[in-house]
Amino acid sequence: MERVLSREEISNSITNSPFHRFLGLELADTTDESLTLKLSFKDSFIAGDKVDYIHGGILASIIDVAGYFVLFQVLNIPAPTLDLHINYLRAAKKENLYAEATIVKLGRSVSTADIVVTNEDGKKIAVGRGLYSTNQS
Amino acid sequence: MERVLSREEISNSITNSPFHRFLGLELADTTDESLTLKLSFKDSFIAGDKVDYIHGGILASIIDVAGYFVLFQVLNIPAPTLDLHINYLRAAKKENLYAEATIVKLGRSVSTADIVVTNEDGKKIAVGRGLYSTNQS
Amino acid sequence: MERVLSREEISNSITNSPFHRFLGLELADTTDESLTLKLSFKDSFIAGDKVDYIHGGILASIIDVAGYFVLFQVLNIPAPTLDLHINYLRAAKKENLYAEATIVKLGRSVSTADIVVTNEDGKKIAVGRGLYSTNQS
Amino acid sequence: MERVLSREEISNSITNSPFHRFLGLELADTTDESLTLKLSFKDSFIAGDKVDYIHGGILASIIDVAGYFVLFQVLNIPAPTLDLHINYLRAAKKENLYAEATIVKLGRSVSTADIVVTNEDGKKIAVGRGLYSTNQS
Repeated sequence: MERVLSREEISNSITNSPFHRFLGLELADTTDESLTLKLSFKDSFIAGDKVDYIHGGILASIIDVAGYFVLFQVLNIPAPTLDLHINYLRAAKKENLYAEATIVKLGRSVSTADIVVTNEDGKKIAVGRGLYSTNQS
Repeated sequence: MERVLSREEISNSITNSPFHRFLGLELADTTDESLTLKLSFKDSFIAGDKVDYIHGGILASIIDVAGYFVLFQVLNIPAPTLDLHINYLRAAKKENLYAEATIVKLGRSVSTADIVVTNEDGKKIAVGRGLYSTNQS
Repeated sequence: MERVLSREEISNSITNSPFHRFLGLELADTTDESLTLKLSFKDSFIAGDKVDYIHGGILASIIDVAGYFVLFQVLNIPAPTLDLHINYLRAAKKENLYAEATIVKLGRSVSTADIVVTNEDGKKIAVGRGLYSTNQS
Repeated sequence: MERVLSREEISNSITNSPFHRFLGLELADTTDESLTLKLSFKDSFIAGDKVDYIHGGILASIIDVAGYFVLFQVLNIPAPTLDLHINYLRAAKKENLYAEATIVKLGRSVSTADIVVTNEDGKKIAVGRGLYSTNQS
């Protein structure tokens, strides 16, 4: 499968969302098979006033978005998330994160993506798997 | 199992988090077996500039938080999320949402919670299940 | 939604499968909203020669089947499993088990079922959630 | 992490189980980072009398077992499954299958494995992710 959107088109689609602008999500990299988002750390991502790690909801969010866009860049259709499964491996501190998504299967009605979140040191923070509705009827 | 924290203590813990304050999460209800959060709609929750529904990452976030607090109110220990599984059932429009969590199992090292997100009309928007690390060693 | 198949028709469909016959699965109960399977204990279900509990694969199997049939009895179409998520709560000993499935959502292309496995004492052994392809095109 | 068990010890542990003997599971390959099981087709795996594909419960079972043994071969402790998540990608016909497991994270109390099931042609049939309790206390 080939990417049918340019880097600029994907970038624009990503920022074309109030919640993504809150997150400050940026396209870090894209190939025919993968897409990587960058999340630059913000204080509002912190889970608690007395802790220094990023909230699991933020990690779930970038996992969902990365899976969505790795499909969007080849299908050029919106593919709503049906099912999202996340494993939290390590706390993310006050640091930038990357979410790299790859396509597991492009199906007629449902497609699957795998997502890995790493920090600047390349340590795995979380992994996710999403099912997206790619029904084009 | 009994709730060991007062309604006020739980409320304070919820707002004691930069990300929860962004979300504006409030405690709506609590019993010995359940806990319900209220999410009041904000424009920054919207998924895209040309759509009117709430981002799946917001739904994942309130599911994660509700599961966390239904365990916290009986255990009074922080229980980091290990695994989160979400099914998206219906788009949430510009509306307030409720996330009701119940305990499936309290385990020595791992506990499980079920979470249902509904809108003001009582329609199910999403369901989630979380595993939390309740290792007290 | 109403059940469109008789108890006998459902029973016949369940036994109409080589793997279900290995398992010895029987219909225990059915209502418009739920379906319960009974699994009678067999030695070949045991996980290891030196242990006395039932293999997780057996539990996954009856969870999958119960979810499938709670949809089948109202839709009367085969709905292949897309996604199955299981939480193991307690070991099942050499005992009979029940898998009760309920419908979370009937969708145009994808439907969701919840399944709870209990033993004769009513203790929860495992819970599962399945997404099934109910695309009728 | 290094494999601490020999190929023969792993093989013996796999066959040391009534349910694995029903499945006829064999060790196909093992490295320090991965373990592959082979499932040789049997008629009793078939999902229905009028279809020719393997039951999803069989796929779930070999996914669970492969994840278990990729951890067992480095930890040499039994690690009960806590959580299993499976995506079904393609029907498996009357054919042999392989389940290759890799370790995502070895944790103090919980570890995660990824499993991919392929057929003889190398096509992906299903993917799974398991959380296993590796609490050694």
